[in-house]
Amino acid sequence: MTLTLVGLGLGAAEDITIRGLKAVQDADVVLLEIYTSALIDSSLEQLATFLGKSVREADRISVEEQADDILSEAREKRVVLLVAGDPLSHACMKMHRHGPPISLVAGRGELSRHATTHCDLCLRAEQAGVSVEVIHNASIINAIGRTGLQLYRFGEVVSIPFFEKNWTPDSFYDKIVQNRRANLHTLCLLDIKVKERSVENLMANRMVFEPPRYMSVNVAIEQIRQVDAVKHELAASSCAFGVARLGSKTAKIVAGNAPGYGRKSCSGTLEQLMSVDFGGPLHSLVICAPHLHDIEEQYFAHYNCSASQTEQ
Amino acid sequence: MTLTLVGLGLGAAEDITIRGLKAVQDADVVLLEIYTSALIDSSLEQLATFLGKSVREADRISVEEQADDILSEAREKRVVLLVAGDPLSHACMKMHRHGPPISLVAGRGELSRHATTHCDLCLRAEQAGVSVEVIHNASIINAIGRTGLQLYRFGEVVSIPFFEKNWTPDSFYDKIVQNRRANLHTLCLLDIKVKERSVENLMANRMVFEPPRYMSVNVAIEQIRQVDAVKHELAASSCAFGVARLGSKTAKIVAGNAPGYGRKSCSGTLEQLMSVDFGGPLHSLVICAPHLHDIEEQYFAHYNCSASQTEQ
Repeated sequence: MTLTLVGLGLGAAEDITIRGLKAVQDADVVLLEIYTSALIDSSLEQLATFLGKSVREADRISVEEQADDILSEAREKRVVLLVAGDPLSHACMKMHRHGPPISLVAGRGELSRHATTHCDLCLRAEQAGVSVEVIHNASIINAIGRTGLQLYRFGEVVSIPFFEKNWTPDSFYDKIVQNRRANLHTLCLLDIKVKERSVENLMANRMVFEPPRYMSVNVAIEQIRQVDAVKHELAASSCAFGVARLGSKTAKIVAGNAPGYGRKSCSGTLEQLMSVDFGGPLHSLVICAPHLHDIEEQYFAHYNCSASQTEQ
Repeated sequence: MTLTLVGLGLGAAEDITIRGLKAVQDADVVLLEIYTSALIDSSLEQLATFLGKSVREADRISVEEQADDILSEAREKRVVLLVAGDPLSHACMKMHRHGPPISLVAGRGELSRHATTHCDLCLRAEQAGVSVEVIHNASIINAIGRTGLQLYRFGEVVSIPFFEKNWTPDSFYDKIVQNRRANLHTLCLLDIKVKERSVENLMANRMVFEPPRYMSVNVAIEQIRQVDAVKHELAASSCAFGVARLGSKTAKIVAGNAPGYGRKSCSGTLEQLMSVDFGGPLHSLVICAPHLHDIEEQYFAHYNCSASQTEQ
């Protein structure tokens, strides 16, 4: 039969497309993937009520380890997998994003399961003769245009993982520096940990989960400063936008820049941005190119001077 | 009152979100912007019927020159501006994308009007006290993930403009080369010319328009080869994906690679990709990073060996 990946967009249940809603209504089985992103303005129950269907939660363990089950279900039935944002944006990021590779901490050579993303699921389904459809939607990758920064001026996207005691991977920092050298902005995706297990629980194969964690703009900047204290290539000359719940009713966009950037109209500093309370998840951060275009400058001032913006 | 920019997504009328549809139903005035992108599976009439509203076409001239009219209308009424794709993705590209700056050909110092994008319109509306809402949707920027290429491995997006007799700007080529040096993919947006006027008609201020032109994958590759014949930094080692009507019912994805890339399972060449008939607009092109990840390799083979893919 069919496997349909439906993007839910960035905010509430009604951000689904009509085509997506029809696919859900026609489906025999509806799964909601919850570990690469999160719905901001809607709970699972609200979503199910809105869709008029029962929705089964699919965490990382079920999507990655039970991919075969999903595929064999899709051979017989019309299966819809709902994904917050766009189905292929967040998922593909995730393999790059979640904490230390399990193979490293558990020594079980499980690195390959991190590649078992939605892309992989689609490909395997197609190879198994299941008809695959992807119904796209907005993701942070394009919605970040709401900052006024021009999308064609973004370089490579980076992911900032939660630093842990003996695990502080800082390749994101080098990429930000590289993008800035090419006069490009950097969108930083911030880590999400949902239904993760501790090393102890993993090794004992206990299905006991840590509480969910979503990295804030503040923690992201703190980690950047931690790396910068060693590498000294970034901080003083960097403008940035902190963004929370983009695309939702409670979206917040705040621009900050370092002292010495020489723009009188913008009084913020990175330190100031760090002290902003962005509220609940999901957060993202943009480190700007050294030079802003005219319209970008205007937006920077707009979001900076008002210090705190709420859009609908 | 309000100005709401509503993204229509990539294919048919039903790719609008429910939130977007509600905004349209509540609107006093509905405009459809047609010059930065195009609806693939729906005409203006079909869209209007689907939405149950009359829809006024807004070409480049009305959005750029009559921005003041749109703003003053939005002061009194609920105005919706519909945009194919995501409202802030395509628009922001466009200023980078359309032909020779008019100031260059007409000597009228009109370069600044190219900055009058949707971003600009939003900012001016906000500054005028009009409540602005942006309802995001999918754009080529994230839907390109359907190729199986990982979005976090894309570098700077480039736009390939139609070459003209004395105007063959080739900065896109250098950016592709730069991205490949950093082992990144490049999404190439291909030029769109809708309701453009010839220099003669522009200078005589005659509202006579050239027929619409949409750059094909084939023309894009031809232009790349033309630059490569001088610069010699790209061709022989480059894999690529040609993509047409992504997100629509007639989407087509074909992967091709150059000889000598050494992948036995993929028999295509860039020449071969050039001879593929991708059908109607809109087309895009991805020049791949020198090294593909495992899942990307698999997708490359999938789209390459089947030589022609149609997805729903």
